[in-house]
Amino acid sequence: MNPVDLITTKRDGGEHSADELRFLVRGMVDGSIPDYQLAAWAMAVYFRGMTDAEATQLTLAMAESGDTLDLHDAVPSGVLIVDKHSSGGVGDKTTLAVGPIVAACGLPVGKMSGRGLSFSGGTIDKLESIRGWSSELSEERFRRQLREIGLVVAGQTAELAPADKRLYALRDVTGTVPSLPLIAASIMSKKLAAGADAIVLDVKCGRGAFMENLDDARALARLMVAIGAGAGRKVTALITGMEQPLGNAVGNALEVREAIEALHGRAPADFQELVERVCAEMLLLGDPLCPNLEAANERVRTAITSGGAFEKLVAFVAAQGGDPAQIRHPERLPTAPVQRRLLAEKAGYIHKIDAREVGLAVVEMGGGRKKKGDSIDFGVGVVCAAKVGDRVEAGDTLCVIHAADVASAAVALDRLKAAWRVAEEPTNSLPVVLDRIGTS
Amino acid sequence: MNPVDLITTKRDGGEHSADELRFLVRGMVDGSIPDYQLAAWAMAVYFRGMTDAEATQLTLAMAESGDTLDLHDAVPSGVLIVDKHSSGGVGDKTTLAVGPIVAACGLPVGKMSGRGLSFSGGTIDKLESIRGWSSELSEERFRRQLREIGLVVAGQTAELAPADKRLYALRDVTGTVPSLPLIAASIMSKKLAAGADAIVLDVKCGRGAFMENLDDARALARLMVAIGAGAGRKVTALITGMEQPLGNAVGNALEVREAIEALHGRAPADFQELVERVCAEMLLLGDPLCPNLEAANERVRTAITSGGAFEKLVAFVAAQGGDPAQIRHPERLPTAPVQRRLLAEKAGYIHKIDAREVGLAVVEMGGGRKKKGDSIDFGVGVVCAAKVGDRVEAGDTLCVIHAADVASAAVALDRLKAAWRVAEEPTNSLPVVLDRIGTS
Repeated sequence: MNPVDLITTKRDGGEHSADELRFLVRGMVDGSIPDYQLAAWAMAVYFRGMTDAEATQLTLAMAESGDTLDLHDAVPSGVLIVDKHSSGGVGDKTTLAVGPIVAACGLPVGKMSGRGLSFSGGTIDKLESIRGWSSELSEERFRRQLREIGLVVAGQTAELAPADKRLYALRDVTGTVPSLPLIAASIMSKKLAAGADAIVLDVKCGRGAFMENLDDARALARLMVAIGAGAGRKVTALITGMEQPLGNAVGNALEVREAIEALHGRAPADFQELVERVCAEMLLLGDPLCPNLEAANERVRTAITSGGAFEKLVAFVAAQGGDPAQIRHPERLPTAPVQRRLLAEKAGYIHKIDAREVGLAVVEMGGGRKKKGDSIDFGVGVVCAAKVGDRVEAGDTLCVIHAADVASAAVALDRLKAAWRVAEEPTNSLPVVLDRIGTS
Repeated sequence: MNPVDLITTKRDGGEHSADELRFLVRGMVDGSIPDYQLAAWAMAVYFRGMTDAEATQLTLAMAESGDTLDLHDAVPSGVLIVDKHSSGGVGDKTTLAVGPIVAACGLPVGKMSGRGLSFSGGTIDKLESIRGWSSELSEERFRRQLREIGLVVAGQTAELAPADKRLYALRDVTGTVPSLPLIAASIMSKKLAAGADAIVLDVKCGRGAFMENLDDARALARLMVAIGAGAGRKVTALITGMEQPLGNAVGNALEVREAIEALHGRAPADFQELVERVCAEMLLLGDPLCPNLEAANERVRTAITSGGAFEKLVAFVAAQGGDPAQIRHPERLPTAPVQRRLLAEKAGYIHKIDAREVGLAVVEMGGGRKKKGDSIDFGVGVVCAAKVGDRVEAGDTLCVIHAADVASAAVALDRLKAAWRVAEEPTNSLPVVLDRIGTS
């Protein structure tokens, strides 16, 4: 087999065989196929796409390109490993609340998670706001905590899907990131390598997400569900709105506080709704006692109102070296010294909060990374005081900026002015879940 | 300026500015743009194409990426430098006959020529059949010979269009060779760098050429004429047939013999016609005494019948160290020890001679290169005894195979059986010139 022949096959609209895709993935891992050939191939894929069968075979080959985990020995016999993935958005602290709730319901959650880049923050960054909390766990400790607490979040220690790592780095510098089959294979290969039996995908859609339009988000969701089915996994994809920030808080410690609120059932409505829905979908996939969404919802509500979910977070944080007092007293989490308010200039209804601009403003203030290795200021961020559809009067607070100093607060204030649009005519609040696509 | 932005511009169907193309070409030459980004860009160009303006700017930037020649000091004052380019075909020894004829007409011909690869042979390889002949000339000697003889053929000594060299090598291994604007820019950049004021392009079309269909050949010709116009040069493109081999002889020394025949006006009809037509088109572009094609044709006929063209070849060969006795006595050129005849199995008319198969059979016998650096057996080859449209009886010779040994002759014979198709119904001979596209 010859890389040039595979490039021309794809260039001319042909379909790759499973053998050809395995050959390509092997070449990504052992370096036998040079970057320039992979780059040309990725661009051909961008233009020609892939069939579901090709995307599935590519995903499987990438999933098998490095270590693969099997966590069944760390969960009660017969229990499924249910994972959750978000395509990333502004203010997306969903995992922080979903993990404890689902674990409290008896479904173990063992996640390998990433750090944030660009306008979308990462779960591990957020958890590191908590004094002492660490994502560095040996595989043995990971399994023990999964067994004992039922909830663990670690950085990637095992070499999961190294083929994806090389291909993604190359796509990033060759204009081939926005290819649906390559995005789907990248996400799903890591989930499969991490040993998930079932997966709930939260595909974000809107200005604050990588997918900006609903058709693309639907196509991506549909493809990932098909790949899951081809790999023998149960997959449910929710397509959720990301025009405005999720919840009110954007910024690491601010988001941890809001996630704690969700465990008490009192987070902002959109975030609370999404958390409970994702939890219910996970239970529906993994808990035989939840035959339908109503039953699952009921179980989720009980985990919250009983305090079980909150106590699970406390136990989880303590198990990974974090200070549980900061969870019981969230005001002790890192704060920023300077607060500035963005005020409504006129009365009316909020029509738009540009999620991407809010995310970028927080990165600019030091709350996220511009490049790999940047350190993070956990206390900074933005907290919305009102969301799309809400009525405001002139002089009302639109959001509060939490900054490290006066200068960066002023820069953020200036930038954020253009992110809000207030107009006279009333408008509806934005829907949280736009669509749902599941294994049939 | 950032390579990723340029890749995404082209990926999304945008048009590059002249500045952007100069930036890309600079990156090809100084290595500041890595291969993987150039490869992704080339694939995006393959899918999105280029406007005539883009292709022209790319060509100019590539032409200026290294040395550029100005040969006006080596030709009489006011005389134009007229070059000739063939896109390459099987049995294409046109330059060997065109050079001496045009030079004999008083229009100087100074060519930098390449070596052959795959099924299509190179002019320099053919000339190297002549004992002692060398393509290695200093630039000074090149100019002197151009001045004194009016005809010189050298290998590329100057660094002409190094950007093209890097891009071509990369296209070759990334499935991006068949992109019309990139092909056109590659050919034209070298011609412009070599200092041509006017160019006759021989765009071959058919099984024995890189362009297999007439629409593609027309589009390539049209684009190269447009690039020439954009660069202020006069360009005439002939689209010529390459379904069957050109002339009868394929193989280096065999082709030199046939080219010598053309200088005497007695080469096979198709080859003789093409040679005289290319010569006339060159005179039409470069000789003010040739106001139209009829006058140019007349001048060409005179150069042949007077013996001036033949004597020019003798002088040219001698000037570059070759043995003129081999030109005056072509039977002294290298020969192959074994000859085998392919015979017609039944009577009828020749409908097809697969030029590509003939070319590949000659390469297989050692008459061409499979890879760079392979040595060449000058004596081997194939000589057709009849061409498409000719009547043959059962047992008539279709072609003679000239081989180094009995074994390779047998392999070629076997392969070539399938290259000829003889059928009962009569068929026409194939046209030589299919179309002509010129600067308006």
